[in-house]
Amino acid sequence: MLGRITLQRCSTTLATFVRCCPLSAQANSFTYRTHTCGELRRHHAGEKVTVCGWVEFNRLNRFVVIRDAYGHVQAFVPDGQESISAAVKNITYESVVKVTGTVTERADKHKNPKMVTGDVQVDIDSFEVLNTAPATLPVSLRKETEVSSDSALRLKYRYLDLRKPQMQQILRFRANLVHRMRRYLTEEASFVEVETPTLFRRTPGGAAEFVVPAGKPNIGRFYSLPQSPQQFKQLLMVGGLDRYFQVARCYRDEGSKLDRQPEFTQVDLELSFTNQEGVIALIEQLVCQSWPDEMTELRPSAPFERMTYADAMRLYGVDKPDLRVNWQIEDISASLSSLKKESNDDWCARVIVAKGAAKSLSSKWRKEAKRLIGMNKFAQPFAVCTLKDDPLFKAALSNQDFLREKLNLQEEDAAVICWGTPADVQKTLGQLRTLLIEATGVRNQKKMVFLWVVDFPLFDREEDDQLVSAHHPFTAPAPGQERLLFDGNPEEITAQHYDLVLNGVEVGGGSIRIHDAATQRHVLKNILREDST
Amino acid sequence: MLGRITLQRCSTTLATFVRCCPLSAQANSFTYRTHTCGELRRHHAGEKVTVCGWVEFNRLNRFVVIRDAYGHVQAFVPDGQESISAAVKNITYESVVKVTGTVTERADKHKNPKMVTGDVQVDIDSFEVLNTAPATLPVSLRKETEVSSDSALRLKYRYLDLRKPQMQQILRFRANLVHRMRRYLTEEASFVEVETPTLFRRTPGGAAEFVVPAGKPNIGRFYSLPQSPQQFKQLLMVGGLDRYFQVARCYRDEGSKLDRQPEFTQVDLELSFTNQEGVIALIEQLVCQSWPDEMTELRPSAPFERMTYADAMRLYGVDKPDLRVNWQIEDISASLSSLKKESNDDWCARVIVAKGAAKSLSSKWRKEAKRLIGMNKFAQPFAVCTLKDDPLFKAALSNQDFLREKLNLQEEDAAVICWGTPADVQKTLGQLRTLLIEATGVRNQKKMVFLWVVDFPLFDREEDDQLVSAHHPFTAPAPGQERLLFDGNPEEITAQHYDLVLNGVEVGGGSIRIHDAATQRHVLKNILREDST
Repeated sequence: MLGRITLQRCSTTLATFVRCCPLSAQANSFTYRTHTCGELRRHHAGEKVTVCGWVEFNRLNRFVVIRDAYGHVQAFVPDGQESISAAVKNITYESVVKVTGTVTERADKHKNPKMVTGDVQVDIDSFEVLNTAPATLPVSLRKETEVSSDSALRLKYRYLDLRKPQMQQILRFRANLVHRMRRYLTEEASFVEVETPTLFRRTPGGAAEFVVPAGKPNIGRFYSLPQSPQQFKQLLMVGGLDRYFQVARCYRDEGSKLDRQPEFTQVDLELSFTNQEGVIALIEQLVCQSWPDEMTELRPSAPFERMTYADAMRLYGVDKPDLRVNWQIEDISASLSSLKKESNDDWCARVIVAKGAAKSLSSKWRKEAKRLIGMNKFAQPFAVCTLKDDPLFKAALSNQDFLREKLNLQEEDAAVICWGTPADVQKTLGQLRTLLIEATGVRNQKKMVFLWVVDFPLFDREEDDQLVSAHHPFTAPAPGQERLLFDGNPEEITAQHYDLVLNGVEVGGGSIRIHDAATQRHVLKNILREDST
Repeated sequence: MLGRITLQRCSTTLATFVRCCPLSAQANSFTYRTHTCGELRRHHAGEKVTVCGWVEFNRLNRFVVIRDAYGHVQAFVPDGQESISAAVKNITYESVVKVTGTVTERADKHKNPKMVTGDVQVDIDSFEVLNTAPATLPVSLRKETEVSSDSALRLKYRYLDLRKPQMQQILRFRANLVHRMRRYLTEEASFVEVETPTLFRRTPGGAAEFVVPAGKPNIGRFYSLPQSPQQFKQLLMVGGLDRYFQVARCYRDEGSKLDRQPEFTQVDLELSFTNQEGVIALIEQLVCQSWPDEMTELRPSAPFERMTYADAMRLYGVDKPDLRVNWQIEDISASLSSLKKESNDDWCARVIVAKGAAKSLSSKWRKEAKRLIGMNKFAQPFAVCTLKDDPLFKAALSNQDFLREKLNLQEEDAAVICWGTPADVQKTLGQLRTLLIEATGVRNQKKMVFLWVVDFPLFDREEDDQLVSAHHPFTAPAPGQERLLFDGNPEEITAQHYDLVLNGVEVGGGSIRIHDAATQRHVLKNILREDST
């Protein structure tokens, strides 16, 4: 079997809700600071401390706020300290400083309840500038980080962007999540982490792989960077290492997408002597047991919900439905038959009633939806309307009160209607549903809905009538369907393949492998017509 | 600061002594086996079990030994089970089988005390062949693994080679060691693991890097695979992430060596606001705290021994001396002055008295030592002799009893003598010392000697008189020596660089970085004459 969890997607999805502030006494071990900027409290008053960090703010050249990854604290220039005063006067924001001084409790009226260290300040004895920042920085560290804002500039000055608390939190959150996954797999489930090579030979028929020319003495030959450790881990299973995992770097020369860069990382695992239920249970345990403490209230419980691929496509138009809202596709072909052209044999009209979505239908959103749907080759005509809209379909509908009565549409709801060939209508509605969910701001709700999508088809048929693997040629048919490989219609076979979906994002998945050499050879040679030698 | 531990060297050095046998109840979770082949004991008698594994042995077609990564167990074909009997008769060694049956205690005379499961057997109810191995295997799994034996064949059939218990142990040992290091760094020392990119831009002046042509839309441009995450982690420090580590894949297009392949892995870490003592203490804690349970008796204790680079070169002729033996270099120029040619101004003769090494001086070893030393461009004439040798130097020595009286050589000792220019004599003796240590079999002694080598020179002078960095241009001078960068002899500067040596192998090291931009610019531009823009 195979399982994987794509880390970037998973941690990006989870990290939306995280506001963790690391606070750890060990953070000062092996350094010359005594405390982090985030940990000083009233009970430290009277202690001589050293803190190091970045100059966040300077008020009146007497109050300097120093920030590090753990928080911030105010340092104070005592009267008569001329040289410190001069240094503070010249300091630029984001310069790196080392401050030694005595912690004192602030007078009540000067306490800052918005600052966790706001009860105290450090009266400076020594103020050492470790490095001076330029007076003007190319990016502002004051603004909240938005993904879209100046992304090129943010990447160019990545070392400044990383100083933002949100970026620090995402890096720490991810590290923590992966560490918990490792602890679960290693300590609770007896898996062995093995590092497999990344300089590999090219996979025939593989998607876009990066190629690496070899140096001496192999000039003229090439390595290739693997898209996943798939072949290596199968060899490990053959080699008797029956419980393998790896936090594995994968490479795909397909350009950057928002959720996948040319190199990305997945928790990659493989287990011998198991079946689909075993792997699903394992991954559910992995997710639940390594769930971050910072979001206990959102921890899912096993078993997760399941849905067949056929149901997902029928009800939601996508193979990774976002179930935070329960809007489903319904057929209204009979009511909208006037839209049908006589030449259309294979025609339908379908609707999604999007409860509560009316307020999200800005004209900007409508325009963007039209543009995005128009880019699909399977695009179908569609309409998005509310009761307030001048009903677009009035003329077409046999019943004037179609929206209100047939669909039971309320003032606050929206109806997404699409018509054309069934397959394309489904896909179009699936996309519109996703776009509309995004617009409703459900992303900001504290909600985590996990879903297994199962029973995928094993093969798809290409336009030239050749069968191709829906996922990859090593996936096993569902138990009891093996014989259909030999004397049935392979298109009817469902695969032992399963995807894990979180809030509409495919965060993981896997499949049971064909372990019988003769069956594998048959699939490659007789069904896929690939060179299996 | 920077620190790193090269994993392959470290785990290869440590794994020499490991004989761990994984035994874990969780190893059966999520599988259809009930037990591993290594865990059945007398108290399981009467239980119905399923084990899966590889056919190790077949006696009389009735007793089949099944092996998995956790051990092996005997399965027994009961009387009258014709179909099982037939299957067992046809089974080939290394075929994969699933066996269900009842655990029974063997009669006392049939118990096998050499086998941990030797008190019991599994009386077979069902014998399923999951996959059949060919009758003849290309490599034998019976032999003990030796590094040198048929290495090409072993690599070609890696999936068979990995089935050997020793290979399984090395993989598991390494995984365990790395997991303990991660736990220490994350949980005890508040470090954050960050994955840095491996598709990077080329470092000017870097050693042989692998180059990766970019695909669309960047055709004609190139990535490069980094030799280490050095630049990324420095950016992380600038970005305020003050305690970073990574188990990092590194790439060097320099061909394979026994202890370094084109891609290798190191535990890579960086810490802000620290000094050399801080980093050394951190790495000592990392090593001691993550020390494997399987070899507690060899656990080192901090602080480790230290030695200056100058002393290492003077006493041992290498910068990574193996201190499992205390043989040191001594000067005997005066005694051997008759070997000196008049033209030699800069001449010396030196000796290592290798206590107890006489028995290791086979003629094969002498021949091989001569060949290896002869390959050096700095090779100097040398002799290796014992009291039993017809003394090679009799004529040359003013005192006939030189070996016995001056060097206090005993019957069991060897003397390694070399003469020529001091620098080359040191290097030659250093190499001969290492070769002789190997020959004495000290490798098989249970002994772990850690050593810090410190106070390396910051710069070396090239033949064209240009100064170059002894390690890399970002290394800081020792405290108090900064001014020598500007108005002194840079060759006299010692660096804040330190290597960790284990049994003569450099397993790690690090350096404090220059954090001041003006100093760094001065080093690059005025001392190294590099383009620092």
